[in-house]
Amino acid sequence: MAESREQFLYDRVYDLVVDQIRAGSLRPGDRLPSLRRMSRQLKVSIATVMQGYTNLEREGFISARPQSGFFVNTGRDKSARLPSATSPRAIARDIKLSAFVLELLRTSRRPGTAPLGPANPSNELLPVRALARIMHRVVTRAPAAAVDYMEPQGYAELRRQIAYRASATGMVVDPRQIIVTNGASEALAVALRSVTRPGDTVAVESPTYFVLLQLIEDLGLKAVEVPADPVNGLNLDALEDIASRFSLAALMCVANFNNPYGSLMPDAAKARLVEIANRRGFRLIEDDIYGDLHFGPYRPRPLMSFDDTGNVVLTSSFSKTLAPGYRVGWLVVDRGREDMLSRKHNASISSASATQMTVAEFLASGAYDRHLRGMRRALKQQVDRMRHELLEVLPEATRISQPQGGFVLWVELPRGVDSIALFNRCLEQGVNILPGAIFSPTRKFKNCIRINCGHPWSETVARGVEKLGALASESAT
Amino acid sequence: MAESREQFLYDRVYDLVVDQIRAGSLRPGDRLPSLRRMSRQLKVSIATVMQGYTNLEREGFISARPQSGFFVNTGRDKSARLPSATSPRAIARDIKLSAFVLELLRTSRRPGTAPLGPANPSNELLPVRALARIMHRVVTRAPAAAVDYMEPQGYAELRRQIAYRASATGMVVDPRQIIVTNGASEALAVALRSVTRPGDTVAVESPTYFVLLQLIEDLGLKAVEVPADPVNGLNLDALEDIASRFSLAALMCVANFNNPYGSLMPDAAKARLVEIANRRGFRLIEDDIYGDLHFGPYRPRPLMSFDDTGNVVLTSSFSKTLAPGYRVGWLVVDRGREDMLSRKHNASISSASATQMTVAEFLASGAYDRHLRGMRRALKQQVDRMRHELLEVLPEATRISQPQGGFVLWVELPRGVDSIALFNRCLEQGVNILPGAIFSPTRKFKNCIRINCGHPWSETVARGVEKLGALASESAT
Repeated sequence: MAESREQFLYDRVYDLVVDQIRAGSLRPGDRLPSLRRMSRQLKVSIATVMQGYTNLEREGFISARPQSGFFVNTGRDKSARLPSATSPRAIARDIKLSAFVLELLRTSRRPGTAPLGPANPSNELLPVRALARIMHRVVTRAPAAAVDYMEPQGYAELRRQIAYRASATGMVVDPRQIIVTNGASEALAVALRSVTRPGDTVAVESPTYFVLLQLIEDLGLKAVEVPADPVNGLNLDALEDIASRFSLAALMCVANFNNPYGSLMPDAAKARLVEIANRRGFRLIEDDIYGDLHFGPYRPRPLMSFDDTGNVVLTSSFSKTLAPGYRVGWLVVDRGREDMLSRKHNASISSASATQMTVAEFLASGAYDRHLRGMRRALKQQVDRMRHELLEVLPEATRISQPQGGFVLWVELPRGVDSIALFNRCLEQGVNILPGAIFSPTRKFKNCIRINCGHPWSETVARGVEKLGALASESAT
Repeated sequence: MAESREQFLYDRVYDLVVDQIRAGSLRPGDRLPSLRRMSRQLKVSIATVMQGYTNLEREGFISARPQSGFFVNTGRDKSARLPSATSPRAIARDIKLSAFVLELLRTSRRPGTAPLGPANPSNELLPVRALARIMHRVVTRAPAAAVDYMEPQGYAELRRQIAYRASATGMVVDPRQIIVTNGASEALAVALRSVTRPGDTVAVESPTYFVLLQLIEDLGLKAVEVPADPVNGLNLDALEDIASRFSLAALMCVANFNNPYGSLMPDAAKARLVEIANRRGFRLIEDDIYGDLHFGPYRPRPLMSFDDTGNVVLTSSFSKTLAPGYRVGWLVVDRGREDMLSRKHNASISSASATQMTVAEFLASGAYDRHLRGMRRALKQQVDRMRHELLEVLPEATRISQPQGGFVLWVELPRGVDSIALFNRCLEQGVNILPGAIFSPTRKFKNCIRINCGHPWSETVARGVEKLGALASESAT
């Protein structure tokens, strides 16, 4: 991905204004600072401010009035209309969801559909050419190693790089604590299988990532949902109550940018969650796959960084940030490491060699952080833009999450909208979305959908949003 | 791997003589046909016959006597001394093996050890440079596809190629019946998870591949061992008896070149096994990973080719023939396909894209069959040579399997030899072997070891065999 100093400056202008609109210090109808004043204030050129304002205008935040300057758009208030917090009933349930999800994902896999469904980053945001070059270099330099078995625990240099990066998130990780897996999914499967026995109960966020529910189903476990809210994630008082009534084997959660809410647990809540799990004696399995895609200035800390007892297992992968098709994920584990390594070995012996070698070399080159900076900026703009556009076209009572990282939006449509019917009608018209029903064991969230913002704004995306709007409005009446 | 018409001709001479020695039509002390006669008979040059005889001499089958010609070596009779058939007790058992196997495999992973342990083909036998070139071409041509998610079922072109090849084994396979997996291990895990519930009983061959036992353990299943012999594999009368006494959920077996026996079930036995499974109502999961590595002229048929009810699931991979480190395996399934696809999705979403694309292109180029021809010849010679050398250095009462394909030998040392102690002593001296105990749920086969013949004869291999011989002889006294 191309990246320039100039772009960085436009974005500062852009971010500053959006933040002020959100905070309420710039309100609809307010005039923006003049180009000259902004230029002095931020110590950037007038052309740079102009470009930033143009971007803001394109994204619908502001409008230029001839001879008067730029003004904040009236429009609707974009920050207040968040989805409701959830309050599922505390019941440990068997899950029957996998066949439904698979059928739905298969149906939706049609070339040319507007990509608002599965949470995939656009290839345009990924360093595809750099990776191709590195893969070529790696397999040419060591053709035998590229076809040979890698050790089950994973390529040592890759584990060293992952451990090194973990130190930036407030943890000290020994490369020997890391097990490389086929994506985060295998990491989650290995971790969950290791800490549960069939029939056990596992707590999940409400709503939660459907693959977690499918894994629970696959292993013959029961799920109990924990209430959550779209800003701060898990409701810990509710969790305390649930943990006192159920014998939980584990809680699986995405503390950093929950999928689908985009919520971010505050540090104090993370510390309390770790304490609750230790006190109540259940394991924490955290999926930190979106952690590097923060919109704020700092990389949020994983739950694991608050734990000094080995009770947390962290899973992650490069599927959202680098190369979904490489299937390079990992888990970080202290307590139970041998058992998890054994289960990884049984699941697939080891992970592919060439992809591990390529990622390790990419990380070692220092290119990853540079890449992430650009990707985060792009995703933030895409998420903002998508939220803005959706609010324009969706029915009046619609509520949309305001994620602080990642690239999905959770959209709560008016009650009465059947999102599975909407999903089917959208598909017929070439638009891919995900219905809310797959994000809960009980297929609730019937009036919700999840929207992928992994793709830059384009004709296809715009048309998709427009059609979704029209169809959702029909459904709501 | 380099391959020439000339080499092919030497090998015809070599194979003919070895076959005659085995069949008894050439006996110790017999004089071989003269160079001239053999040259006329096979319609090859005298130089070619000479090279074939030289190879036979190097392998220890024959000796030149000045002025008189070539004679079959006296030596020990190499074909009669097969290991015993097994007769395990019919008990359904929980398994506790995984931690032991993992520790053992980890201990044995030391650079520079003689590679007689894990069943890995030498890189020298694999088309490492051709694969590196193709991978470069593939990722350069389609850099975005290489980093993008592949569909969960696997790359369509790869599935088409695998289905096409299946027709050569007597089956008609629709590419939609194929699910690409991370090696055969994931295929086995997916299949086994799909057809069992925790607590179920699964039948296995005795001895059997340890990963099958580890999977059974991992899923909380019980295993019952079925007697087998080192030539024809499963004892079907014994299986009938076991199936009448236990409610079996499945039988997992390697009909084509069982690991570790190298046994090959005759076609009639395969047909009967399929019939028994259908009549008794248990599923057959066959691991056909060694099927392409036959020493005889024909590719043996998989069990699946005898089944028209959808009861058999076939698993395989390119790990033994092409690229262990690519982790490209697959399963072929009719009944229960949706469930297995769902479980594959839950296990790892999809398999890596670049490796699937590379293998598909290699297969489409026609290079695979050419490669296999050379590899089979090399493996046959390596297995013959290893068996010959082992019989020279191991204690008198040693019995060794005579596989008809694959590249492992099962070695039954004199009773009283403790093969785990032998494994440890070998490792200290830089030799890697596998103890027999990991090939059974009850850790029997205490006096057996498995020997990998995947590496061409070399100084390292020769030294390893010599040390193994010395240590085994010490243990036997």
